[in-house]
Amino acid sequence: MIVNKRIEKLRKKMSEVGVSVCLIPTSDCHDSEYVSDYFKAREYFSGFTGSAGTLVVSMEEAALFTDGRYFIQAAKELEGTGIKLMKMGEANVPTVYEYIEKVLKEGETLGFDGRLVSQGAGDKIAHVIQKNKSNLNFTFDPTHEIWENRPKLEFKPVYRLFEEYSGESLESKLNRIKEYMNTIGADSHVITSLDDIAWILNLRGDDIKNCPLFFSYLILVDGECHLFANITGNEESLIKEYLIENRIILHSYEEFYNEGLQSVNIRTKKGILYNKKRINYLTYKSIGENLKVIDEIEPSTRFKCIKNEVEIENIKKANIKDGVAIVRFERWLKNAIISGENLTELSVQNKLYEFRSFSKEMIGPSFDTICAYGEHGAIIHYEADENSNAEVKEGGFLMIDSGAHYFEGTTDVTRTYAIGDVNKKLKHDYTLVLRSMLKLLNCKFLYGARGNNLDMVVREEFWKEGLDFKHGTGHGIGYLLNVHEGPNRIGWKIPDERNLGVVFEEGMLTSDEPGIYIEGSHGIRIETDILCKFLYEDEYGKFMGFEPVTYVPIDKSAILIEEMKKEEIEYLNSYHKLVFSRLSPYLEGEDLEYLIKATEEI
Amino acid sequence: MIVNKRIEKLRKKMSEVGVSVCLIPTSDCHDSEYVSDYFKAREYFSGFTGSAGTLVVSMEEAALFTDGRYFIQAAKELEGTGIKLMKMGEANVPTVYEYIEKVLKEGETLGFDGRLVSQGAGDKIAHVIQKNKSNLNFTFDPTHEIWENRPKLEFKPVYRLFEEYSGESLESKLNRIKEYMNTIGADSHVITSLDDIAWILNLRGDDIKNCPLFFSYLILVDGECHLFANITGNEESLIKEYLIENRIILHSYEEFYNEGLQSVNIRTKKGILYNKKRINYLTYKSIGENLKVIDEIEPSTRFKCIKNEVEIENIKKANIKDGVAIVRFERWLKNAIISGENLTELSVQNKLYEFRSFSKEMIGPSFDTICAYGEHGAIIHYEADENSNAEVKEGGFLMIDSGAHYFEGTTDVTRTYAIGDVNKKLKHDYTLVLRSMLKLLNCKFLYGARGNNLDMVVREEFWKEGLDFKHGTGHGIGYLLNVHEGPNRIGWKIPDERNLGVVFEEGMLTSDEPGIYIEGSHGIRIETDILCKFLYEDEYGKFMGFEPVTYVPIDKSAILIEEMKKEEIEYLNSYHKLVFSRLSPYLEGEDLEYLIKATEEI
Repeated sequence: MIVNKRIEKLRKKMSEVGVSVCLIPTSDCHDSEYVSDYFKAREYFSGFTGSAGTLVVSMEEAALFTDGRYFIQAAKELEGTGIKLMKMGEANVPTVYEYIEKVLKEGETLGFDGRLVSQGAGDKIAHVIQKNKSNLNFTFDPTHEIWENRPKLEFKPVYRLFEEYSGESLESKLNRIKEYMNTIGADSHVITSLDDIAWILNLRGDDIKNCPLFFSYLILVDGECHLFANITGNEESLIKEYLIENRIILHSYEEFYNEGLQSVNIRTKKGILYNKKRINYLTYKSIGENLKVIDEIEPSTRFKCIKNEVEIENIKKANIKDGVAIVRFERWLKNAIISGENLTELSVQNKLYEFRSFSKEMIGPSFDTICAYGEHGAIIHYEADENSNAEVKEGGFLMIDSGAHYFEGTTDVTRTYAIGDVNKKLKHDYTLVLRSMLKLLNCKFLYGARGNNLDMVVREEFWKEGLDFKHGTGHGIGYLLNVHEGPNRIGWKIPDERNLGVVFEEGMLTSDEPGIYIEGSHGIRIETDILCKFLYEDEYGKFMGFEPVTYVPIDKSAILIEEMKKEEIEYLNSYHKLVFSRLSPYLEGEDLEYLIKATEEI
Repeated sequence: MIVNKRIEKLRKKMSEVGVSVCLIPTSDCHDSEYVSDYFKAREYFSGFTGSAGTLVVSMEEAALFTDGRYFIQAAKELEGTGIKLMKMGEANVPTVYEYIEKVLKEGETLGFDGRLVSQGAGDKIAHVIQKNKSNLNFTFDPTHEIWENRPKLEFKPVYRLFEEYSGESLESKLNRIKEYMNTIGADSHVITSLDDIAWILNLRGDDIKNCPLFFSYLILVDGECHLFANITGNEESLIKEYLIENRIILHSYEEFYNEGLQSVNIRTKKGILYNKKRINYLTYKSIGENLKVIDEIEPSTRFKCIKNEVEIENIKKANIKDGVAIVRFERWLKNAIISGENLTELSVQNKLYEFRSFSKEMIGPSFDTICAYGEHGAIIHYEADENSNAEVKEGGFLMIDSGAHYFEGTTDVTRTYAIGDVNKKLKHDYTLVLRSMLKLLNCKFLYGARGNNLDMVVREEFWKEGLDFKHGTGHGIGYLLNVHEGPNRIGWKIPDERNLGVVFEEGMLTSDEPGIYIEGSHGIRIETDILCKFLYEDEYGKFMGFEPVTYVPIDKSAILIEEMKKEEIEYLNSYHKLVFSRLSPYLEGEDLEYLIKATEEI
């Protein structure tokens, strides 16, 4: 197997420089969730194509750590490689750190590329190293020499997102950040996360597939703002002018680690603000040890998760465009099934993309579409390819999780369609997923509630039946940024002891996406994006709720009405009424007829 | 007013020693929730009789901070004193620390008695002091001189809790603690919380009203165990023998701060374990600054919240005794109402106590009974007295929250009775409280869930209707210790950023007590104690649930059956079936007839 040969080469390289255990994470220098092809070393060395995972290679063995979304997929892809699958979060499965502690012997050296490991992870590893009396080499980068034909690190054109879309100027955003820094006593701030930088500067790029971001670092120091990026493309001079107008000092991307961080070290007098969770270990180690560190979530992260009025209006527009495209697609799908057309997962997802592409403002997909028929639906982050491409036929569920970036914002929607008639067990599961999605969408809560409170509104229904789904119920969604973007999230587990999850605030956009995944049988997920709203205040406090901003009909053919509570039937009918009112002005003929039926009351 | 004069005297004393702001908490030296009369200085100076609150007195003003349970009561009791009521947790109400920051000027001194303030609180205050450039006097104890006829600090007889009740020997408990200390690298451990010490030693006392605890400190150092307590009573010599047998070295209670802590400072070589949250500020400041501190919840707290098999069997027995007494009481109450007897809150609660007293193993109440008719029910911790004592008459709810200590454990139960017929609004509220109590009791959850997850099972139902109750849904319950005893608790808010609440484990005993409190109208609470159980493990993980251990019928006369979901009706019927099976062997005649009717299916 090709993977085995690559690991052999890696071990050879490790021996040469005296590294006994090598850690290869899934990351770029910016702690991005999805990485550009250049950074896919973990995939190159393991063969596992999922979006999250850490490979640890020692001389004797290799282990891949990944989470519940990928257990089924990873098990398949690792077959025959000899790499152990470590199911993170399962009982008796060590963490990456516990595993390292076990395999790394006294006096040995652990190596990794410090640009690709977060400060938090690096520190935990350093702690293990100290405990084990072993050594750390955090500038070990074996990939470059081993990986033939490695894709290039590309810097694609950068473009502006004007205020009609962003709703707030660069100047205003920077002022808010500076004001915050002042409050907490910081006179410098290092930002390495691409979504934060793009949001602050009202600029977008295309350096990571499905993410309109551009490789960059940002340093605020002593009242100045320094951008480290390679600006290219048609608008290069316009962008540079815009930066100068806003007194942003531009440096090349490569100058960050030397010139950039040195300047921070010299000029910081009061305190340096950065988020240990997001800066990489090399950045962390390059910052002067004697500086007063204020370790906090980036103020831009706090600010950008609360959408402003302009953004909210735009997000609704984007979702209308998305809804119109999906309704047209659904009408086509229904007809194609009735007329017995030969459909596959790939042909269906291509057709969906075609419908979305009719909109000129659509920039591209916000993530790789999951179009999964039957048992493929149980693979939480399934991606159809020529080998797996299943036929879409009667008797099973077709689950489609897709989204797009528009200038008006980012969408993310999942609908599950019963193809022909499905059996009662499937209908029961479908009804459960639908009911719980509607429950969260319609829940009312006191201000102060966090995602681990809200998750229970959904989770309770599953646990009651002895079921569960191994992912959170919802993730934050960026505005033409990342489709998964915190700090808001809805999940019953606390991500880590230091991070309780944030209190839900008006203007936060989050997904609501419970699911059922039965390996070898079926998968169901229904996802609607929900905007947090203030309802009213009385003697109990501030009551909050959600407003759906996804406008896509929910397949009614698999609903067991007798299992729906009266209020849940009302929730569905009122949701469909909203979908109809939003989309009907933009549809006509057969499409409109389809919408009328699809949104009819049950 | 008498309170004003006391505060005048306090201010005079403050001027004399140069203290500008004085903080008087509700605490003893052991961070006990309830304090013996000797320690009721906050009540003495403010007139507020609730169990929780902090008084801050400056030269210009005085403010009392208390929580939602006491807003109504405190407002009444503070009337005319000039003391401001600070409703903790409400919007725009400063915390104690923020308030101090505001009133304490540069160069001024804040004073408190360091034995009565927790390390955590003391540190936060010290932080404010530093910020404000003011001074701290943590040995300021003005109470003693001002308070004429102050009650004595009493040391009542100590007695043993034998293994047939405790289920684990002192030796075994100490070994587990020592083993844990070893694991975390501690060679000394200071324990100041009375429940921990009583649990470890299998000893009980009677130094605080309603709490079978005795004033004491415990120090583990260098393999030795030192107890600081004044052992008195008939069994004095037997207890001392028992301590010697177990190699517990006894010192007088007063020797702790000098001899005790000095020895710790000298003999600790590796690390000292204590819980900053529970030790007092003077203890904290007396421990050598150069010692390596391991700040953690006491291992005994972790251990004792998980009841062992012997304890569980005993707890069920105690609750049967309690249930039998309450059923007899209920039968009496029903007859008394029918026959038009003159009833008041006090006469009713005395009668209940009389029925409980028939059991020889009953040691005493586990807290002051709340027997609240009509609008008094809205005062969450109401206590009837000669002035407030309301007539119990037709048309309102009578809420009784009571409990007792038995050798077989501690009970805590609330039932709300409709006296005669109540209106539909009251019935609706009653049904909501009942439904949500039953929902939590019957919920099933994956191992890993914490109290802030589980609370939502109840809270969701209230928020949906725009209601809330300003207390947690459940508290841990000790075994012949404190009736409120963590670390397990069920509440939607995270108590503080460092304390996420613990994961629910098999054997934890917790209350399940939602309520509705409508000021000036009515209060309803239904409380059942629930024991956490392991159900089964499958591919989703370990499923957990609860088993009720309170066996007391729930008044059915105020239920609106049409508002109960089918499953909730089943929950109630199956609960009543259990109550019947537990209590019927111990009842006969009219009492048994009453039980049969009270537990009949709806």
